[in-house]
Amino acid sequence: MRNFIIDTDTASDDAVALLMALRQPDIDVKAITVVAGNVPLPLAVQNALYTVELCGADAPVYAGCAKPLLRDLETAQDVHGRDGLGDIGLPLEGRTPAAGHAADALREVVNAHAGDITLVTLGPLTNVALALLREPELAGRVSHCWIMGGIGSGHGNVTPTAEFNIWVDPEAAKVVYESGMKMTMVGWDISWRYATFDAEQAAEIRRIGTPLAEFVIDIQATLTEFSMRENDLAGFDLPDPITMAAAIDPSIAQYRDYRVDVTTGEGLERGITVVDVLGVAKRAPQMRVATSANRAAFVDMLKRSVS
Amino acid sequence: MRNFIIDTDTASDDAVALLMALRQPDIDVKAITVVAGNVPLPLAVQNALYTVELCGADAPVYAGCAKPLLRDLETAQDVHGRDGLGDIGLPLEGRTPAAGHAADALREVVNAHAGDITLVTLGPLTNVALALLREPELAGRVSHCWIMGGIGSGHGNVTPTAEFNIWVDPEAAKVVYESGMKMTMVGWDISWRYATFDAEQAAEIRRIGTPLAEFVIDIQATLTEFSMRENDLAGFDLPDPITMAAAIDPSIAQYRDYRVDVTTGEGLERGITVVDVLGVAKRAPQMRVATSANRAAFVDMLKRSVS
Amino acid sequence: MRNFIIDTDTASDDAVALLMALRQPDIDVKAITVVAGNVPLPLAVQNALYTVELCGADAPVYAGCAKPLLRDLETAQDVHGRDGLGDIGLPLEGRTPAAGHAADALREVVNAHAGDITLVTLGPLTNVALALLREPELAGRVSHCWIMGGIGSGHGNVTPTAEFNIWVDPEAAKVVYESGMKMTMVGWDISWRYATFDAEQAAEIRRIGTPLAEFVIDIQATLTEFSMRENDLAGFDLPDPITMAAAIDPSIAQYRDYRVDVTTGEGLERGITVVDVLGVAKRAPQMRVATSANRAAFVDMLKRSVS
Amino acid sequence: MRNFIIDTDTASDDAVALLMALRQPDIDVKAITVVAGNVPLPLAVQNALYTVELCGADAPVYAGCAKPLLRDLETAQDVHGRDGLGDIGLPLEGRTPAAGHAADALREVVNAHAGDITLVTLGPLTNVALALLREPELAGRVSHCWIMGGIGSGHGNVTPTAEFNIWVDPEAAKVVYESGMKMTMVGWDISWRYATFDAEQAAEIRRIGTPLAEFVIDIQATLTEFSMRENDLAGFDLPDPITMAAAIDPSIAQYRDYRVDVTTGEGLERGITVVDVLGVAKRAPQMRVATSANRAAFVDMLKRSVS
Repeated sequence: MRNFIIDTDTASDDAVALLMALRQPDIDVKAITVVAGNVPLPLAVQNALYTVELCGADAPVYAGCAKPLLRDLETAQDVHGRDGLGDIGLPLEGRTPAAGHAADALREVVNAHAGDITLVTLGPLTNVALALLREPELAGRVSHCWIMGGIGSGHGNVTPTAEFNIWVDPEAAKVVYESGMKMTMVGWDISWRYATFDAEQAAEIRRIGTPLAEFVIDIQATLTEFSMRENDLAGFDLPDPITMAAAIDPSIAQYRDYRVDVTTGEGLERGITVVDVLGVAKRAPQMRVATSANRAAFVDMLKRSVS
Repeated sequence: MRNFIIDTDTASDDAVALLMALRQPDIDVKAITVVAGNVPLPLAVQNALYTVELCGADAPVYAGCAKPLLRDLETAQDVHGRDGLGDIGLPLEGRTPAAGHAADALREVVNAHAGDITLVTLGPLTNVALALLREPELAGRVSHCWIMGGIGSGHGNVTPTAEFNIWVDPEAAKVVYESGMKMTMVGWDISWRYATFDAEQAAEIRRIGTPLAEFVIDIQATLTEFSMRENDLAGFDLPDPITMAAAIDPSIAQYRDYRVDVTTGEGLERGITVVDVLGVAKRAPQMRVATSANRAAFVDMLKRSVS
Repeated sequence: MRNFIIDTDTASDDAVALLMALRQPDIDVKAITVVAGNVPLPLAVQNALYTVELCGADAPVYAGCAKPLLRDLETAQDVHGRDGLGDIGLPLEGRTPAAGHAADALREVVNAHAGDITLVTLGPLTNVALALLREPELAGRVSHCWIMGGIGSGHGNVTPTAEFNIWVDPEAAKVVYESGMKMTMVGWDISWRYATFDAEQAAEIRRIGTPLAEFVIDIQATLTEFSMRENDLAGFDLPDPITMAAAIDPSIAQYRDYRVDVTTGEGLERGITVVDVLGVAKRAPQMRVATSANRAAFVDMLKRSVS
Repeated sequence: MRNFIIDTDTASDDAVALLMALRQPDIDVKAITVVAGNVPLPLAVQNALYTVELCGADAPVYAGCAKPLLRDLETAQDVHGRDGLGDIGLPLEGRTPAAGHAADALREVVNAHAGDITLVTLGPLTNVALALLREPELAGRVSHCWIMGGIGSGHGNVTPTAEFNIWVDPEAAKVVYESGMKMTMVGWDISWRYATFDAEQAAEIRRIGTPLAEFVIDIQATLTEFSMRENDLAGFDLPDPITMAAAIDPSIAQYRDYRVDVTTGEGLERGITVVDVLGVAKRAPQMRVATSANRAAFVDMLKRSVS
């Protein structure tokens, strides 16, 4: 069994990623830590709890930071729906998270499984940064951190230069990226290139016919509409699930080592993940960046997890 | 008895401020939390422990953040000496701080004395910011926070626009200044206008003849030289002690309510405490700023504390 | 006779400053160059032409830049009136400026009187910067440049950190401040400390009874209301006239040499004139900053100019 | 005949681009305006004059701005050689440029051929920006402006985010990009993807055997070494020539309309050309960006021009 801890601002694609990890027989999800991002914190907590329940799993869910380190929270409810799960009427209220703060849970789980714990982050990096600020040594105890965030190559989704998770809390991203942790960044470019689902591809998954299969498609309702209208995609895309797939089976993607910096300015200078492809900054690489992925292997894994 | 908690990057003027609080009969110093600033964290911890011991006090001393939230640490060892206490040969090694992190101690002490605890900060605001990021509700439980930092009016000391404590960790200052805590900023201008000691004024204190009187003057050796050469002062100045004096007896200074913002840029745009004197930004004041002080009352309090 | 060239974004206090120079018997105003600032360029041109006509003078008026070098124009029509001269119904239309661009006129006049020409700037520094960008050697040919702009000490008027003229075009200010020209900055602090007129002081000037005396007071209608409401003054203040007074008779103010930098960020980091009082930046002073003024001498000069 | 005006910081690839235009039978190069960039202004002027002479042409060469609008000049003499033409011992001294400033020449030529003049820029945009600041209406009189500068897609060469020409003077680029001129940006990505020459490809051109053929290869000596070592290329690349090729025959490249913004911060936030691929900023496109090119057609044109 491999130990996972997942940090998430649970909305429609996060839920699919959670499900993939929770349904993976050889993975023990030690904790799910929730952060504000796609939706306000209380909604994200409920969405995580609902997803765990739906999977019949028992991973504890912890509530964490309700806003970025320094900035006001900006959500993506226009993308994922007001409730974050597509506004399809799911009963997303009344569940109770585990006691304690997500940043403390992160520290406890990592320390309890030092050297044998994979961290997967699906939202803004506020919780992870807070844990690292409190205990910098944590960085050395995480086996590997898989980050859905930023852009490896190409354009952003929330501004022309930035991806949502990093843009929401660039200061937190900077803390994490400079922490010394072993890391792989799976940027939004990997998602729109290898994890987009058009109507027929979505229907194919839904036809598997299980409640989970219906769930993973139905909650993308708002996202689909947004992705086609604003992001020039043929359907919805699943950034968090393809990141989770790589965390579960790293052979699903290809990687290169790079120095990556995060900008913390305003406007177009906010939350850029600067990948130094040519090494012109003469600084040693500190992380891996996913450069391509195997779509078929990803889709297979996704299908298996809902079958 | 009034409960105090003091956050300090213990160097020469911090030590005097600690001593003033520890020697005050009606004040119970519940904890001293230490942060990197004037000197690296381990030196600051030792300096605090030495000062507590010298005063025969038993306040617990906690080590906190070894560097600012986002930036590299910049110390002021050219100002306060390599050991932070004037390099006069004091035995500043081997003492052991209390177990636990300063940010946790801050939270525990404030929560244990909610509504009846005065926080005095003498260094960069990293520890306080970290505590507030972890538990934002803390802000409402501090009776009042007295901040030595920034500039109420006039020029800076580390750059033309900034005071050292705020400049070292402007992001932490921003977190604290926007936390909603009841706060008073005692800027460096209050120090150089009301808390400078020339050779004769220093000699007068030293002539009190107690070990504490000698200590508070002797450890300013490096500071004196620096203040006269770089800051155009007639001798050393004591920003932390005059802040502590105001925390102990608020009638020692005068105040006005202002909106104060902290800039987080680089160079001249780093760590400015922008006091909106005219209210042109049309934002409600969120804190008090000391505008003048009673030097005689301050000096009297200082003398009593070493007598 | 001394040769003057005046750059102005002609609004209510600019007009008074122009009048003071035009009425000075020993000063030959070679040209008035107009820039967008307080009001859009066409209005500023008309206001300058009207003022020249009112004084029975024949200084040529040139239109220059209609917007700042890099930024959109922000006017101060809420301060000076929609027409810039208090909206009191003056006939401010139909006059024709001299042919040619203000920046070219600046260059021609300075070159024609190299070493014997005083430049006085009353608005954003766009025209002057453009002339210097085109011909950097110009800086060495100006006898002295008197700049109404920035803040020598204290708070701003348009933001907490910035004065209007510098804030409108900080990049132009940077070009001018770093040009090597001999310069004196008369900040807004000199104006509100030494050039404010309450109702009785204004009435005293108006009672002189000449058309010029009535003009200089009546056009301050909007400014008076604004200054009392927003800038906490007892009446209107006259930054451009007190700067002109110092240019005409430098003994009216006192000065110190300083290194002054202009910040070019956004928000609170836009257009700060950073005066390095302590020399902490270790860069040689490049200009003079007015530190105080003789109000009585200024008022006398103003009265004489309208008598 | 088509009228061209070329602005250049003449170094090794600029010289090839100049040659291509000067040798084109149906193009009349009305003026060459020189700006500081790759090399200091006096060297760039000499290199342009030498190239014109070598081609037996008589286009007038004007010297322009010796430094960027707001920043200190940074050259690329490590890339192109100390003399800018590969340090191969060419006699690059003693020639005399035409009288007058490049920015004035730009204005005069454009005004003389309003609506019938193509502007090609091969260096930092300082001269062009200065002309536009002085006479904003110029933008509407240029038939089309071809800009070698910035990045359409991918990584930078001087920093991870920026291309040299834009990075050197981002404020000038901002002025030009926001001028309303009809423009096409040919980014450095077009060069390294379609205009790189390895040893054999270079030798093939040199074997044409004319003095011009030898010149265009021999002056790339320093560039070749740099491009292979620092930019991960198989040989030298020719950004200015492929831009000139597109200006001469637009069918050589493909284009898309985009909104492009230039960032003016420091470090990684300096001189980014932000191409809003998805239109997330909701601002109308203001220029064309080259997205691909026909290498064979470019090489053919290059060969013809030296044959």
